[in-house]
Amino acid sequence: MPKRIRLDKRIVTENDRLAAELADRYDRAGVLVVNLMSSPGAGKTTLLEVTARALAEEFRMAAIEGDLATDNDARRVIEAGMPCRQINTGGGCHLNAAQVRDALDAYCLEDLDILFIENVGNLVCPASFDLGEHRRVVVSSTPEGDDKPVKYPVAFRLADGVVLNKLDLADATDFSLEAFRGYVHGIKADLPILEVSCKTGDGLAGWFQWVRQAREALAAPAPGAE
Amino acid sequence: MPKRIRLDKRIVTENDRLAAELADRYDRAGVLVVNLMSSPGAGKTTLLEVTARALAEEFRMAAIEGDLATDNDARRVIEAGMPCRQINTGGGCHLNAAQVRDALDAYCLEDLDILFIENVGNLVCPASFDLGEHRRVVVSSTPEGDDKPVKYPVAFRLADGVVLNKLDLADATDFSLEAFRGYVHGIKADLPILEVSCKTGDGLAGWFQWVRQAREALAAPAPGAE
Repeated sequence: MPKRIRLDKRIVTENDRLAAELADRYDRAGVLVVNLMSSPGAGKTTLLEVTARALAEEFRMAAIEGDLATDNDARRVIEAGMPCRQINTGGGCHLNAAQVRDALDAYCLEDLDILFIENVGNLVCPASFDLGEHRRVVVSSTPEGDDKPVKYPVAFRLADGVVLNKLDLADATDFSLEAFRGYVHGIKADLPILEVSCKTGDGLAGWFQWVRQAREALAAPAPGAE
Repeated sequence: MPKRIRLDKRIVTENDRLAAELADRYDRAGVLVVNLMSSPGAGKTTLLEVTARALAEEFRMAAIEGDLATDNDARRVIEAGMPCRQINTGGGCHLNAAQVRDALDAYCLEDLDILFIENVGNLVCPASFDLGEHRRVVVSSTPEGDDKPVKYPVAFRLADGVVLNKLDLADATDFSLEAFRGYVHGIKADLPILEVSCKTGDGLAGWFQWVRQAREALAAPAPGAE
């Protein structure tokens, strides 16, 4: 039993080491990296599609897609105009830093402003695996229920932003915005919540603004960077 | 690296050994055990609530609830009239056989007809951990999208039944029943799909009938069992 615990630790450390290398590589290239996590079907891919279309003139963007199987999501994102590389994890329940490192071969990071990583649809495991990202975003959606932050607190605690999607279904699903906000801020008091409907476009301006600010924050502190 | 692989195997084998013990214990007690899996917020707990109310006269039922945190779900199920024991996994992304074995101390299995186990909301990891159950059910929901079977094939391949919940939101979410059925049966040709809305009650009779038949199938082959 003690042996197993020791080994788990070593595995995490190996991912952390690789993630630190990736973080360094992102910084040297000057590319903002955003890691998107959510339950299956919360709308990560749809969010990338609308972002690809809305910010195409402002930023040079690309994506990495994580899924157990199929390249459906990558094809959707590419169709929306954003280059995208698919990772299939087989049975794997999260992306790890080694998979992301390999997928990066598809890109010249120096030619990008923003790289989005769409993690495997899973509100548990991806939270424990650093991919070297600058920002973590949890995408939640109203049909999942307003109690998800308290049921899956780790993902929310480690997030830098929450996108609450499918606002158009809030009434039909008896979703309480007030309860959701209370749960989120009970876990992390200053966590920004972007309330949107990718379907109607409602609230998306707030999400785009969050992306712009994250990009500016990255660019600001390294004025002498080459 | 080879060491890690060997150890992973040993861990799975330990769970399998415990699961086989549990399966034997369920059979000796003559209790049907159903393991429910789904994405977060697909409606497992709501399904247990309506089942508790609808079948209270027919069966002696109890439940075990798996969640990372809170005992919210157990309280809801108890409120609906079904005894329920909560397991909190901390960060754990699935229930394992040891956790279920410990939770069983709350019950005299011989006094039960059906035990439901509600797994952690996660469409990936729970599929890999046998809990000794007789039946596995994947609860899917229309807002997650009709493509979930192909994106998370393992859970569907190992299931004995699929409950498609939130039928009342199918139109609002552009969900194609035909596509969903095609994807499910492409993975497992004879997998029963129970299409329901726990909110409106639509289709629930089919789910209750599935439960009755599973219970009958268990009772039938052991006529001399005491």
